[in-house]
Amino acid sequence: MSSPSVTPAPEHSTRTRADHPATTVTVLGLGPMGRALAGAFVDAGLRTTVWNRTAGRDRELLDRGAVGATSAAEAAAASKVTVVCLVNYEAVDAVLRQDEVEAALKGRTVVNLTADTPARARDTAAWAAAHGVRYLDGAIMTPATTIGTPDAVFLNSGPEDLYLELAPVRAALGGTHTHLGEEIGRAAAYDIALLDIFWTAMAGYAHAMAVAGAEGVTARELAPFARGIGAILPPLFEETAVDADAGTYSGEGNPLTSAVSSMSHIVQVSESHGIDAGVMRAAEGMARRAVGLGHGQDGFIRVAEVIGRR
Amino acid sequence: MSSPSVTPAPEHSTRTRADHPATTVTVLGLGPMGRALAGAFVDAGLRTTVWNRTAGRDRELLDRGAVGATSAAEAAAASKVTVVCLVNYEAVDAVLRQDEVEAALKGRTVVNLTADTPARARDTAAWAAAHGVRYLDGAIMTPATTIGTPDAVFLNSGPEDLYLELAPVRAALGGTHTHLGEEIGRAAAYDIALLDIFWTAMAGYAHAMAVAGAEGVTARELAPFARGIGAILPPLFEETAVDADAGTYSGEGNPLTSAVSSMSHIVQVSESHGIDAGVMRAAEGMARRAVGLGHGQDGFIRVAEVIGRR
Ligand SMILES: NC(=O)c1ccc[n+]([C@@H]2O[C@H](COP(=O)([O-])OP(=O)(O)OC[C@H]3O[C@@H](n4cnc5c(N)ncnc54)[C@H](OP(=O)(O)O)[C@@H]3O)[C@@H](O)[C@H]2O)c1
Ligand SMILES: NC(=O)c1ccc[n+]([C@@H]2O[C@H](COP(=O)([O-])OP(=O)(O)OC[C@H]3O[C@@H](n4cnc5c(N)ncnc54)[C@H](OP(=O)(O)O)[C@@H]3O)[C@@H](O)[C@H]2O)c1
Repeated sequence: MSSPSVTPAPEHSTRTRADHPATTVTVLGLGPMGRALAGAFVDAGLRTTVWNRTAGRDRELLDRGAVGATSAAEAAAASKVTVVCLVNYEAVDAVLRQDEVEAALKGRTVVNLTADTPARARDTAAWAAAHGVRYLDGAIMTPATTIGTPDAVFLNSGPEDLYLELAPVRAALGGTHTHLGEEIGRAAAYDIALLDIFWTAMAGYAHAMAVAGAEGVTARELAPFARGIGAILPPLFEETAVDADAGTYSGEGNPLTSAVSSMSHIVQVSESHGIDAGVMRAAEGMARRAVGLGHGQDGFIRVAEVIGRR
Repeated sequence: MSSPSVTPAPEHSTRTRADHPATTVTVLGLGPMGRALAGAFVDAGLRTTVWNRTAGRDRELLDRGAVGATSAAEAAAASKVTVVCLVNYEAVDAVLRQDEVEAALKGRTVVNLTADTPARARDTAAWAAAHGVRYLDGAIMTPATTIGTPDAVFLNSGPEDLYLELAPVRAALGGTHTHLGEEIGRAAAYDIALLDIFWTAMAGYAHAMAVAGAEGVTARELAPFARGIGAILPPLFEETAVDADAGTYSGEGNPLTSAVSSMSHIVQVSESHGIDAGVMRAAEGMARRAVGLGHGQDGFIRVAEVIGRR
């Protein structure tokens, strides 16, 4: 799928029961994802300590053999490696930036799998450096249910030696792990871009469902055709990426002028039914801006270059 | 993929050289798609007459055996079936709503494969009825290069007897043909909804490329992961369609509140780089509206129901 010159080689973990029984790990945060991570560590035979702001979320994990802690500092002190998985970095700051936690983490490792922005990852790395904490940033690209299975996808960035050292911890999580580079914000940058693709596509699908519904077409009637459209996206993503990096933007057979015509039809039908067409209006606006700058005969992906101009 | 109770069974055409050599067909409009359609008819051995507003576009087709016409009326008079494929219905009106063309088409069949809105399809059907023209509406869901191959996808709506009668014409085009019902606007309704999914997804991808670029990630570096995200969409489209028709909107493990948090991170990173985040801002707005109406614990597809409310 990816050539090594373009993408770092992903590492595929096959879960094994702790070949490193000495490995100890702490999980801070027991939302659906934190619980899935802690559960996978327990299943792999790692000595796993867990903590959550609101008490009681650890019950099932304790039954399975995890060790409970009454504070984040106590939890952090229990293991060499602390995995953090909270709602966002405001929560991460609230938990980690306390004197006792900072003291417990000194000389130890934090792997932060909380999703947020690249700037926040850089800020947390600066905090870690200031407190003698070894820091790796990461993002999880698949649902909590995939953790421990081959379907899980993890992205990491930060010091390579630290990444390599953590192989036994990753092995417990299954799935595919990719080290994207030493720049600490890189995992978050990929995460943001990929979530952008995902949530924009879902917004388009929700809108299409509403428009189809107003025309008397049910979601299930539309679905097989929607699936067909979905299936043409992955290869198109790869083709147009090559086009974009090469700066060719070939519009052959499907120029931007034709895209804006379709887009305006969609807006028209949506608004004729009183359905908010804000997403498509904004998309049409980006495309019309590219046309206005003289790129009407180019392919749609010219839009990426135009909106990315400084 | 689809159960017969939900979706009309598609018809798969295997191209055969005219088992109906008596079939005559006219193509009005020789853009990339009109030329592909006319070329497929010629290849199938149908007597094919072609016309285009701007002269000279028929050259290659005439070399291959098509018959040229000097006016739309002359072209329409030459065949029992006239296929129309122009940029939009304004162009269709400009070509068909002329006295001589109307006279030539009386008692004959028009198949309009031009893309536009359901309302325009209904309006054209009314014009056809008023002039004694038999009318079938359609939409082509795949690029011009697919015409004549198994990959071509055609949607049709209008009188079923007419649809069935036109099987020999369709056979020349290859691919999959689905009759969506007698309501003439139905093919356009599906077309609009499917183009909505497609162009919104492409807008998201273009935006993600721009954001990744600003973070130093090239399009080709992002592509394999983008492809991975693309691959999870088709099954998700089908699952959430069932959820939407059932009105369950299960947010288990991925509630709307979590989606809006991701969306606001995307807006933040985009705008921190000076990149227009209008599409995601609009998508976030739809999602926040659903949250505001008390659906924060539902799945994202609740948005379709909320924006579709009258
Ligand atoms: N769930 C998934 O399928 C999935 C998939 C990919 C990535 N992720 C990412 O994984 C991370 C965790 O997600 P999640 O699904 O487990 O649930 P979540 O709802 O995103 O986060 C819940 C966790 O955050 C804690 N929290 C929130 N505010 C806090 C604060 N101010 N101080 C301390 N703790 C606080 C919660 O503690 P309380 O219990 O005390 O509220 C709970 O432990 C998120 O960044 C998410 O984007 C999740
Ligand atoms: N190309 C594809 O891959 C594709 C895929 C799916 C669906 N479609 C649909 O197929 C239809 C045709 O597309 P296309 O790609 O062939 O090219 P197009 O650029 O959409 O349409 C070009 C055709 O429209 C004619 N036209 C424009 N304005 C006219 C007017 N006022 N009066 C008469 N003729 C007029 C042009 O004639 P002149 O040469 O005189 O300008 C030419 O024949 C569109 O609705 C498109 O959405 C195309």
